[in-house]
Amino acid sequence: MAHQSLQTLHSFTGGLVTALHVIGGKWKPIILTELRRRPLRFGELRRAIPGVSEKVLSQQLREMELDGVVNRDVCPQTVPRAVQYSLTELGITLHESLRPLAAWGEEHELRMLRPSG
Amino acid sequence: MAHQSLQTLHSFTGGLVTALHVIGGKWKPIILTELRRRPLRFGELRRAIPGVSEKVLSQQLREMELDGVVNRDVCPQTVPRAVQYSLTELGITLHESLRPLAAWGEEHELRMLRPSG
Repeated sequence: MAHQSLQTLHSFTGGLVTALHVIGGKWKPIILTELRRRPLRFGELRRAIPGVSEKVLSQQLREMELDGVVNRDVCPQTVPRAVQYSLTELGITLHESLRPLAAWGEEHELRMLRPSG
Repeated sequence: MAHQSLQTLHSFTGGLVTALHVIGGKWKPIILTELRRRPLRFGELRRAIPGVSEKVLSQQLREMELDGVVNRDVCPQTVPRAVQYSLTELGITLHESLRPLAAWGEEHELRMLRPSG
């Protein structure tokens, strides 16, 4: 694959930019990973992610909802109404497609511990 | 895989954060893709990436060099000395690990064309 066609090159880059746009928010990788494990309420999700503010978490969840990777489910039986977040089918496929990248990162984690430049 | 262990969860997220740190710069996906195709001089790389400034391209290349994914080779035979950039073995494995993510992005590109939020 040393010489890819220009077409392949451009669609690879385009696809990558799209995917990084969806997953690239500061807290989105951890949101995706937590929700892959199980559906969570907002408060549970916030406790699972130390350091995130309520405002930023709401915003990132809203973006992921717009991108179709996160579901926001309201349970009408409860008072006040409980809101629960989960991954959509699309979100699950995104998580799957991130496995090799996560494995690469795990494998080379120590190598990458450099002062940020 | 609905219920991953906490250990798996944390190393997945950690690996992902590491990898996104390496690839997440604005121009890094395209740098990686261009250099996967063939080694390039600085000017060639800059022409291949419309919109990038010399300063920012230098900086992103330097970070990728520090992360061990890009090689900077000086050819001592030429005057002035030509500098050529290429992917290291580690850079090639990073590119490989991004294939499923790029394919996911390509597949869902139209779905993701939303106003940025």
